[in-house]
Amino acid sequence: MKPFLDQNFLLHTPAAQRLFHEFAAQMPIIDYHNHLPPQQIATDHRFENLTQVWLYGDHYKWRAMRAQGISEAYCTGAASDWEKFEKWAETVPYTIRNPLYHWTHLELQRYFGIKELLSPKTARAIYEQAGEQLRTPEFSVQNLLRKMNVRALCTTDDPTDSLEWHRQIAADPATGFQVLPAFRPDKAMAVEDPAAFNAWTDDLAAAAGTTISDYDSFLSALKNRHDFFAQHGCTLSDHGLEQLYATPYSLSEIKSAFLKIRSGQHLDPAETLKIKSALIYEFALWDHEKGWVQQYHLGALRNNNSRASRRLGPDTGWDSIGDFRQGQPLARFLDRLDADDRLAKTILYNLNPADNELMATMIGNFNDGSVAGKVQFGSAWWFLDQKDGMEKQINALSNMGMLSRFVGMLTDSRSFLSYPRHEYFRRTLCNLLGHEIEQGELPDDVEWIGEIVRDICYRNAEAYFGFGK
Amino acid sequence: MKPFLDQNFLLHTPAAQRLFHEFAAQMPIIDYHNHLPPQQIATDHRFENLTQVWLYGDHYKWRAMRAQGISEAYCTGAASDWEKFEKWAETVPYTIRNPLYHWTHLELQRYFGIKELLSPKTARAIYEQAGEQLRTPEFSVQNLLRKMNVRALCTTDDPTDSLEWHRQIAADPATGFQVLPAFRPDKAMAVEDPAAFNAWTDDLAAAAGTTISDYDSFLSALKNRHDFFAQHGCTLSDHGLEQLYATPYSLSEIKSAFLKIRSGQHLDPAETLKIKSALIYEFALWDHEKGWVQQYHLGALRNNNSRASRRLGPDTGWDSIGDFRQGQPLARFLDRLDADDRLAKTILYNLNPADNELMATMIGNFNDGSVAGKVQFGSAWWFLDQKDGMEKQINALSNMGMLSRFVGMLTDSRSFLSYPRHEYFRRTLCNLLGHEIEQGELPDDVEWIGEIVRDICYRNAEAYFGFGK
Amino acid sequence: MKPFLDQNFLLHTPAAQRLFHEFAAQMPIIDYHNHLPPQQIATDHRFENLTQVWLYGDHYKWRAMRAQGISEAYCTGAASDWEKFEKWAETVPYTIRNPLYHWTHLELQRYFGIKELLSPKTARAIYEQAGEQLRTPEFSVQNLLRKMNVRALCTTDDPTDSLEWHRQIAADPATGFQVLPAFRPDKAMAVEDPAAFNAWTDDLAAAAGTTISDYDSFLSALKNRHDFFAQHGCTLSDHGLEQLYATPYSLSEIKSAFLKIRSGQHLDPAETLKIKSALIYEFALWDHEKGWVQQYHLGALRNNNSRASRRLGPDTGWDSIGDFRQGQPLARFLDRLDADDRLAKTILYNLNPADNELMATMIGNFNDGSVAGKVQFGSAWWFLDQKDGMEKQINALSNMGMLSRFVGMLTDSRSFLSYPRHEYFRRTLCNLLGHEIEQGELPDDVEWIGEIVRDICYRNAEAYFGFGK
Repeated sequence: MKPFLDQNFLLHTPAAQRLFHEFAAQMPIIDYHNHLPPQQIATDHRFENLTQVWLYGDHYKWRAMRAQGISEAYCTGAASDWEKFEKWAETVPYTIRNPLYHWTHLELQRYFGIKELLSPKTARAIYEQAGEQLRTPEFSVQNLLRKMNVRALCTTDDPTDSLEWHRQIAADPATGFQVLPAFRPDKAMAVEDPAAFNAWTDDLAAAAGTTISDYDSFLSALKNRHDFFAQHGCTLSDHGLEQLYATPYSLSEIKSAFLKIRSGQHLDPAETLKIKSALIYEFALWDHEKGWVQQYHLGALRNNNSRASRRLGPDTGWDSIGDFRQGQPLARFLDRLDADDRLAKTILYNLNPADNELMATMIGNFNDGSVAGKVQFGSAWWFLDQKDGMEKQINALSNMGMLSRFVGMLTDSRSFLSYPRHEYFRRTLCNLLGHEIEQGELPDDVEWIGEIVRDICYRNAEAYFGFGK
Repeated sequence: MKPFLDQNFLLHTPAAQRLFHEFAAQMPIIDYHNHLPPQQIATDHRFENLTQVWLYGDHYKWRAMRAQGISEAYCTGAASDWEKFEKWAETVPYTIRNPLYHWTHLELQRYFGIKELLSPKTARAIYEQAGEQLRTPEFSVQNLLRKMNVRALCTTDDPTDSLEWHRQIAADPATGFQVLPAFRPDKAMAVEDPAAFNAWTDDLAAAAGTTISDYDSFLSALKNRHDFFAQHGCTLSDHGLEQLYATPYSLSEIKSAFLKIRSGQHLDPAETLKIKSALIYEFALWDHEKGWVQQYHLGALRNNNSRASRRLGPDTGWDSIGDFRQGQPLARFLDRLDADDRLAKTILYNLNPADNELMATMIGNFNDGSVAGKVQFGSAWWFLDQKDGMEKQINALSNMGMLSRFVGMLTDSRSFLSYPRHEYFRRTLCNLLGHEIEQGELPDDVEWIGEIVRDICYRNAEAYFGFGK
Repeated sequence: MKPFLDQNFLLHTPAAQRLFHEFAAQMPIIDYHNHLPPQQIATDHRFENLTQVWLYGDHYKWRAMRAQGISEAYCTGAASDWEKFEKWAETVPYTIRNPLYHWTHLELQRYFGIKELLSPKTARAIYEQAGEQLRTPEFSVQNLLRKMNVRALCTTDDPTDSLEWHRQIAADPATGFQVLPAFRPDKAMAVEDPAAFNAWTDDLAAAAGTTISDYDSFLSALKNRHDFFAQHGCTLSDHGLEQLYATPYSLSEIKSAFLKIRSGQHLDPAETLKIKSALIYEFALWDHEKGWVQQYHLGALRNNNSRASRRLGPDTGWDSIGDFRQGQPLARFLDRLDADDRLAKTILYNLNPADNELMATMIGNFNDGSVAGKVQFGSAWWFLDQKDGMEKQINALSNMGMLSRFVGMLTDSRSFLSYPRHEYFRRTLCNLLGHEIEQGELPDDVEWIGEIVRDICYRNAEAYFGFGK
């Protein structure tokens, strides 16, 4: 019987253990996509207790608590920090087999050296011990990142963002890691709600120091922000979409549609698809011009619970996996860009594992030999961010593409305590490879396979994104 | 080499064996969804031979025999009971890796103490030995259920059913288990065939003691039967649908559509979707009012073989797994009910494993903390009712939800010999958990995990359905 | 630690090893679907070096090289044979976990006795050693096939093909194996491009020695070629389709649509679906009349990269897995044929593993007991042609159908070195069965299960296709 969560956690063969401890463990981290608040990095924020860092913004945990029958007061509501933590501690023993069970105890071990399991019995002591630590300077946000050997991280930012906190971080030579913005213009495509779209468009105009009267000036303002982001070190865009949009359109249709929204009217479904198709294409051209990497997060069915969404807003735990048709529009979108060689480096993230093989083969259609691993099948994401999901993504990529060229893991998290997810991914990767070495399905060449592990954990991302160059 | 089907069948680690033998095995059974004939329970029927109990109604076995090249005479046709059994015995050795191979031998062992494998060589002896047993009082239908430690079971009943057999069973204090009806109004939604729909609607009017002249009186008659079922202990509804229906409609459209069908005309596809959307919503309101659990069986593509369906009728083995779009209509249907807090406890059963992750995340959108495990991802169903299918459902639920709150297994069967499927499920569950304990992916806390096993095997269902309270 | 690629490669239990070595290994090969060039068989072609036999036509390898960042010159371009091989040797060590890694080394071992791993270090020696061998008579195309114990193989041929090479092979009594054509009328359905369609139709008229003025004469010419193929031993048709077509149509609509294309006009989408539905139905009637087996390869999304497709043509590595709706049209197509008992023996090949369970259950809808395994779920195909893909197909078929009636593996390859894929499949099959014997999930009856292995590896195909009878 292996002990729970010991140094060989998830590493079930000697080869896996060697790959992890000798090759993967010491590699630094490039966390090229997350949702960390740059302000807390810039101000080197300190949290007062585990509730603040764990439960203030984590819809994964809220969903588990709600499934446990715990009232909203203890999730997003008015209960005290301790009361919320107590309810979370009650929930944890019931989360076995959910990644939350592993994340929770991995984070307690790695950051706080706490090896007890969280439960009602241990809740008070753990809350106090971790809280004491969190309130020390060693547990400031920047120190948490340093502790995890983070070399670079990319936040996710609205085009209207002033990037003031990124500037402030960049200005501090002592930080020791890069914090870069990523350009995420989802709100520029959210034309379904004209009022919200128009308010955001006004913000955009202000940010770009211009007025937006028509589609051309809208595009100009966005391009202005794209340039501005580039000036602040941004080299990635990101897009959260149900599916890619590749409906044929004419420029005059788009111009009319834009004026229609600006006058406060709703577009019909065909107009909506066309303007989204136009915008996502324009963004991709800019990404290619600047040599950026473009990321597409595909397949989420969002805001399904209108009662809760009204009360709590987006990203509070009411989203799920959708079953959108991905193949044809995705192929058409990528082909339109590739046709005149304007396809930027691209990462496709897939939320429905039923589409893993589609994605793993789609990337091969646009790898033209110009860059190793030019089009990437991104790491398992969100609901799939657990051992099973990672293994399925790694297996699909291995069977249908080149695992060795994979740029690897990212946290995608809102929490500064999520960095052990890189370790989790690395252990899972080494376990798969080690198992096949032991079984004679890979050669017993740990030195060579260890180099590929290092590539996937760090060096491929370093080369692909080119941060700091 | 482990022996086939011994006491540790499917239990591949010591931890799995402890979990099953010390925690799961002795729990009683709540079989909250099946297709058993209540008349045979009420009359405490006895079967004359294995063919009657195994082959008279089991389309799983017929499909295997047809794939084996066996003529219909031996499946549903005029061959004698012995001839049919002989053909089945010929087929069994060819069913290796199909669940039929396991079910068959598990049922021979558990009910009859027969450990030989069924084959042409053993067919005669097994047929005779089991037949002798079946003809004794110890093998009456009620005794078969008692032998399996069944506490409660729910049949599946048409709204026009008189429930006379359920009344008769309930009136007998000696039975020792509950037999409850479940309200399954599929025929109320089968508007595609106006003649059949109208005949059924006339039956409904008769059952409700009313006349049905319009949509309002149709709904009233259905509501009358819903009330009648409730008076007979019913607390569950059930629906067999390709996908959920959530097309917007106006009441006047529905009223017109209803009159159109009643006049014998076919609805067009849009009208069909609207009236189905209206009806399934009304049923859900009633379920919520009465505190029932509503069950949706999603994803079957039925009656694909018109030649055979004409000859043999529905449910004779001509159905398969479909690839319907599930996400958006399911989310909209549930949201419409949740929006004004009228969503009953709900179980979603999924037939296409490609949609497992969609379902496992969908339930989380409507768990509002009011009841533990309010919305459930139901157990692997029909074609998925084998080790692989169960493991996939359990894994998806574990990774994306709360396995610990799962209400567990049901037979969904037409046969009184299917109860070892609960044991099969429990072994599979314990094997997954035990494996992870051995691997150090779960803590070595068999006492705690054993309690969760007991919850999933019995106590969660007891609390969720509240039978006998 | 098991050695890489030794005699027990992929065989992880003693039972698996017995099943493979004692039952599977010695069975001959019926390769009932591939893309080998019959001319090279007829002329008993010899290759000069590994590049010619490995890299001239293999889009799997090209895709890997492009993902590696290797320029097109070394894939399909002007580089020398040695330069191409060198680039391929550079790529191989990076293909770990991709089937190419296994195929490559299995082919080096089985054909050439080379046990070194291919890498830049070994490239020169391997190129020279294998080249020397290839240039000897023992490595002629026919001898390569004999070495692999091939009894019969079916190529894939256009209806306009003269079958001259097939005739020439058949005329040589010394060949020792059958080489049969398969009727693949994809171009007859490629109505999207009227110019190409009309050019092909003119070729068809010439081949049939007739003129094609309308739909009737088009069908007659195709039927003429179907008859001609039958006279040359053909007993299989094959079709590469995104999904099956079963749109209702009238004959007059089809006749008009045909004249419209012939006049050079494009059909609209509805007309396109109708004419495809009509044609695929007619072909199926002919297959049934002649007792042929019809094969449908479903689910590929082809020619996604228009820049590359323009330059390099089809089948050069720009295809991927699609997510087409398969269930309803497939059921309707098969049912229309079955309704008046005109459904030929049928094999469904599925490219998207998300549809595996749909396919495994679909076949059961049309197994009517007339022929064992009448409708088959074909072996894992193209992107799925690796251990994972094979296991998923075998598992879906096992769980939902009759593995024992499976007609087994085919190469589907353009290369004469691909025959170890049969061995790979057999090892994978034996490993699954052996594992379950060791685990007590199958009885310890290697003799019986070995017979089923022999059936799947050879005898089922022999009986199903009836070659040489």
